[in-house]
Amino acid sequence: MNRRTDASTYFETLSLTPIAHIHSDFPEKFGIPRQSGMAEVSSFLLFEKEYRSPDCIRDLEQFSHLWLLWGFSANEAGRWSPTVRPPRLGGNKHTGVFASRSPFRPNPVGLSSVRLDKIEYGADGPALFLSGADLMDGTPIYDIKPYLPFTDCHPDASASFTADALKHRLQVHCEPSLLSLIPEKKREALLSALALDPRPAYHSDPDRQYGMSFSSYTVRFFVKDNNLYVSEICKRI
Amino acid sequence: MNRRTDASTYFETLSLTPIAHIHSDFPEKFGIPRQSGMAEVSSFLLFEKEYRSPDCIRDLEQFSHLWLLWGFSANEAGRWSPTVRPPRLGGNKHTGVFASRSPFRPNPVGLSSVRLDKIEYGADGPALFLSGADLMDGTPIYDIKPYLPFTDCHPDASASFTADALKHRLQVHCEPSLLSLIPEKKREALLSALALDPRPAYHSDPDRQYGMSFSSYTVRFFVKDNNLYVSEICKRI
Repeated sequence: MNRRTDASTYFETLSLTPIAHIHSDFPEKFGIPRQSGMAEVSSFLLFEKEYRSPDCIRDLEQFSHLWLLWGFSANEAGRWSPTVRPPRLGGNKHTGVFASRSPFRPNPVGLSSVRLDKIEYGADGPALFLSGADLMDGTPIYDIKPYLPFTDCHPDASASFTADALKHRLQVHCEPSLLSLIPEKKREALLSALALDPRPAYHSDPDRQYGMSFSSYTVRFFVKDNNLYVSEICKRI
Repeated sequence: MNRRTDASTYFETLSLTPIAHIHSDFPEKFGIPRQSGMAEVSSFLLFEKEYRSPDCIRDLEQFSHLWLLWGFSANEAGRWSPTVRPPRLGGNKHTGVFASRSPFRPNPVGLSSVRLDKIEYGADGPALFLSGADLMDGTPIYDIKPYLPFTDCHPDASASFTADALKHRLQVHCEPSLLSLIPEKKREALLSALALDPRPAYHSDPDRQYGMSFSSYTVRFFVKDNNLYVSEICKRI
């Protein structure tokens, strides 16, 4: 292990092309859970033509969890600075980009662990049905790997400020007459995504109305203290 | 969440350039632990010039574990087939490439969790000292992310055949007169890497001699049943 004086004599560029895309209920960035596994949201993954052979996922059903490597949306790719302001720190404390999961990174690849619920085979090849993906509809997927607890799981890992991220939840209030507009099997996902507090970190204006796209609906709400009130649900065409 | 009929209408290519390189005691592929955290091996990471600002890793020391996204060695990149033969299955059972952590994947990006032991600042910028990296000397690193146990840790994940991977170990026999050639602080790393059984999965010839490069040494050994015997240790210039 010799300390090299100039590591930059190495130069390896790697070109990634999507192997699949995610289909989720989040057509826009606003409202997407900020980490995987935080809300009970469902999505599915369809492979690009070249990777639709069932052979590519042979034995995959033996794993309960998968890693997805994915691409951040176009407006984030390529922009980065040495420090970022994580929403979990209130949005005004700077932390290093490599000490964060911010999308604004030198190589904008995201990493998410998701639960594999089932695999169905259709005209588009295998569809992987997933829980807990924090991904926008249409997100390109560059790799799928099995989650291996003996090497990927570190329950004793210390995680700095992020330990509090698990705790922050809003109390969500939604009139049954509004909620009934949403298909029953999607209601829990919407409510748990709202409870995660979709507002930008530095917002605390109780009169401000927010609009979040969810499936083919627009959900409007406001937040007072730790309560989120759904004020309107509209179906889009 | 509308099922799209042709996901291939999306096409997003992502170009990754190294942000850092790993400096490890494994100059060749043979003998590298096959997953991270399996052996007590040390390594360090040096950043490329563009990413050497201490700002890029501000607060990183608050995390005990990190994710590394890295590139497989040149002879593996770009080669892939729908199925692979994992060494853990004896090397003759085929499993899907996305149900494996094989290097021979469509987008050859590796994923490893490592322990962050300390950070030192020198003429080459910050050096991250790591434990448990399963990486060859010179491996390009494309991203570093903090390990977040609340979203990355799934102790209950089922892992198919890989559960047995944790158990297989060889009993390593090495004469003290040989072992004393290795610097004391590197001995444990060598012994634990040998115990993981570096042989290709389909090898079981007790007369076969193997040579493994470790730091600036060549370590020769043979394996009988569950015993590994070190027969020679040579220092290279």
